[in-house]
Order: sequence, then C-alpha cells, then structure tokens
Amino acid sequence: MTAAEPAPAVRRGRGRPGYDQAAVLRTAVALFNRKGYDATSIGDLAAELGLSKAAIYHHFASKDDLLRLALGDALDELTAVVSAATHADDGSSAHDRLREVVRRSVEVLVAHQPAVTLLLRVRGNTPVEVDALKRRRWLDDQLAGLVRDAVAEGALRDDLPPELVSRLLFGMVNSLVEWYRPEGTHDAATVAATVAAVAFDGLLRR
Amino acid sequence: MTAAEPAPAVRRGRGRPGYDQAAVLRTAVALFNRKGYDATSIGDLAAELGLSKAAIYHHFASKDDLLRLALGDALDELTAVVSAATHADDGSSAHDRLREVVRRSVEVLVAHQPAVTLLLRVRGNTPVEVDALKRRRWLDDQLAGLVRDAVAEGALRDDLPPELVSRLLFGMVNSLVEWYRPEGTHDAATVAATVAAVAFDGLLRR
Repeated sequence: MTAAEPAPAVRRGRGRPGYDQAAVLRTAVALFNRKGYDATSIGDLAAELGLSKAAIYHHFASKDDLLRLALGDALDELTAVVSAATHADDGSSAHDRLREVVRRSVEVLVAHQPAVTLLLRVRGNTPVEVDALKRRRWLDDQLAGLVRDAVAEGALRDDLPPELVSRLLFGMVNSLVEWYRPEGTHDAATVAATVAAVAFDGLLRR
Repeated sequence: MTAAEPAPAVRRGRGRPGYDQAAVLRTAVALFNRKGYDATSIGDLAAELGLSKAAIYHHFASKDDLLRLALGDALDELTAVVSAATHADDGSSAHDRLREVVRRSVEVLVAHQPAVTLLLRVRGNTPVEVDALKRRRWLDDQLAGLVRDAVAEGALRDDLPPELVSRLLFGMVNSLVEWYRPEGTHDAATVAATVAAVAFDGLLRR
C-alpha cells in the first residue's frame, strides 16, 4: 500500500466539505492498511479526514463497525465469485469453472484492492476478525473442492496434493494485493491471463 | 499466524527464569505479527515475557531495534539465496538457477516464517521499514532479471511479461507465510517441489 489517498470531499449544505459514509469507509480502510487496524484509532481517522470524532460516529457505531463493513464488502464479492463457480448448473467442466474463478478473483482483487488487502491481513484478534476468517476458510474449502473436481474429471494432473495446489494457485492470485499498481502497465485482464498461463500451462517453452 | 509461542525460558543464576536476546526477539516478532508492529509496545512485550521493560531495554535499545534485527535476519537469508543464484559462475543455466532460488526460498520461508511474515507486511512507516523495502526491491529486481535471462536463453516461454511472471512466481512462494503450518502434512521439500511443478510445468494433465 502506498499512502492513503484522501477520500474525495463532497460539498454539502452551508458550504462545508463533508464526506459520505462510503468515503469515510474508504479512508478508514486505507489507514488500517497503512498503520495496522490495532494501531489506528477513530481519532486518527477523524484527523485524516479533518473531521471531529463525533462526525465519524454519526456514520459508524465503532471502529469495529468500520472493519466489519470493509471486510464484508470484500467477502461478499469473493463469495459471489466462488459460489457462481461451485453452484454452476450449466454443465461446464470443473476445469473451466476453476479458470473462471481465477479470472474473476483477479478482477475483484484489482477492483477492491484496499478491502481485500485488509481481509488478507486479518489475524483473528476480534470477533469481527474471527467471523471473517471463518468466511475465508469456507472460500478456501470451496476452491480446494473445485481443484479436486478438476483433477477427478481428468483435466488437471493428479500427481500433486490438491489442497496444496489450491493454496498455491490462490496464493499467487492473492499476492496481487501486495504488488499490483492500478497505474502500472498491466490491466486486470492481462494479469488474469498471465496467472492462468503460468498456473495451467506452466512457464517452460514447449 | 497463530498465537505467539512463548519463548523458551532459560534458567539463569539465582534461580530466576530469564530470556536470552534471541528468545526476546522471537517473542517480539510473534507479537508484532499478531497485533501489528505499530500497535505493539515494549510494555506489551515485557508483559508477554513476564519481564520488566528495563529487562527488555537491557537487550535492545528500542522497539525499532527489535524490528531492524528481525527484518535484517530475514533479508540476510533471502539475499544469500538470491545472490548465490545471480552470481553463480558454475556455468549453470538461468533456468536451473531460477529453480534453485525457488527451492531455497521455500526453505528460508519455512525455516524463518515469523521473520519473513513480518518482512512481507512492512509498509515503510519508519526509516527501518524504508530500508527493508529498499532491500526487498533489490531482491525483486534480481529475481526479475533471472526470469528475463531464463527467457532469453530459450528455456522459458517468451509470450508473458517477465516482470509479471517474476511477481506471480514469488507471490506464490511468499504466500506460504500466510498458510503454511509446520505441523501440517507437507514438509518444505514437498512444497518446493509442488511450487516448481505448478509454475514450470503447469497444472494441465498432458
């Protein structure tokens, strides 16, 4: 993460710049990623936004509430991608659905990079974090099942431990949050295609 | 990271349990990973160890000093692995040296998981962190160069952006710190072999 971008100010009545709920949440996520959730106070967030703490509490009940909403956003997006793949009833192969999950996961990570970064750093220090870890484990289990299905149908090689393959494949995808820069030379589609080329076809020249 | 393991107590003179410098550092790294560096105080570390703050300051000048030593350990190990590969004068191919870096990086990550976890979460909030990021960038550049050399010598396919391939390959390796459990079913050698199989040969059955 580079330094947090200040949330765009929204002009309100009486000429004072204000922030809507989404803008406050965006700034909170950037600050959590920069300083760590445990080290960030509502006072820090208020200072970053040039608001009073009361103005933050007007939108959010607590710091925990901000975290819950941010993690929920990221988890909802990823859950939608994974559920679409695991509950597809269009007769597509597990291999095709696995490729589609990889492609769409890259899109979600690029579109929601700050929230997913926060999600991937969750340690389980609070009930909100424990719930998020539970949802992440469900996602991991679904993905491992999809890899196993793709091996069972004969599309993928069967000489590697499927749960290890799943960890590595989505570890490669998740690594995006650490190094992807939206202003860089590669768009989400190029990254997704490169992930698929490396993981499914391999790097060796044939 | 699971909960920090308490550092093993060392019996000292006068019958009181004490901790040597390495044990204090190990506990500090575990605590930094669990709570975040910015949210952890020397007081927290003293409480975790059942020591006075003065006892910590007997070993370390500051919290920054603990971070510098921990990151230095991880960086020295990784630098040794990368330098050995990029400065090899044994006539080995870039492809072989890249495979060797992957294999040895996995070993370092498994053997030094807490310190490398800390390193991979560094955000650049302090001069110590900025220095660590500079050394990480040097490593990234060396690895990207090795991928380019392996493409140039004809071993690896040339239709993918080499710097993206390098990010993904070592993103996959680095993801280990998030999910690898030493008490799990796969040892470092199995993980290293699976990373190489996925990345170089690909997942498709042939």
